[in-house]
Amino acid sequence: MAEPLSVERIRDALQTLPAWELAHDRIRRSYRFADFSQAFAFMTRVALLAEKQGHHPELRNVYSRVVVELTSHDAGGITERDLELARATDGMD
Amino acid sequence: MAEPLSVERIRDALQTLPAWELAHDRIRRSYRFADFSQAFAFMTRVALLAEKQGHHPELRNVYSRVVVELTSHDAGGITERDLELARATDGMD
Repeated sequence: MAEPLSVERIRDALQTLPAWELAHDRIRRSYRFADFSQAFAFMTRVALLAEKQGHHPELRNVYSRVVVELTSHDAGGITERDLELARATDGMD
Repeated sequence: MAEPLSVERIRDALQTLPAWELAHDRIRRSYRFADFSQAFAFMTRVALLAEKQGHHPELRNVYSRVVVELTSHDAGGITERDLELARATDGMD
């Protein structure tokens, strides 16, 4: 099982993921798109990747806005898998 | 523009939508599926219908769970369009 990362390690990693914020046991980013269609297309790409990796984000969608939250429930915190998914998700917006 | 419905009218309508709850300016239902794939398939069907109707729910997904919230921002409350979308969404789970 993956080990949860230290706050120091997470803050260090977020320097290269500047749109993400640390919120307790998770990292979070809000994405804004032109409309609902664009927003849902993004969610679909994230969903396909998540299913492939066996690691799933929490998703919230309000029209053209999508909030992605990443945590590793099995590890009880944020792991390298969350940072990897954050990097991949940033490449899709 | 659609008129917001009275609380009395909403409570009356929810008698035929028993899994939905009234929460301030919106109605809400939580759906549980077998896995993420099933949950996202449901969200996709809801998204396609919403885009077709030009009326969009707020969606929250945590693995196999999907929470759908319906309100009409332009009317400042719950309208018949929300009840229609709730009925349609219930037919998809």
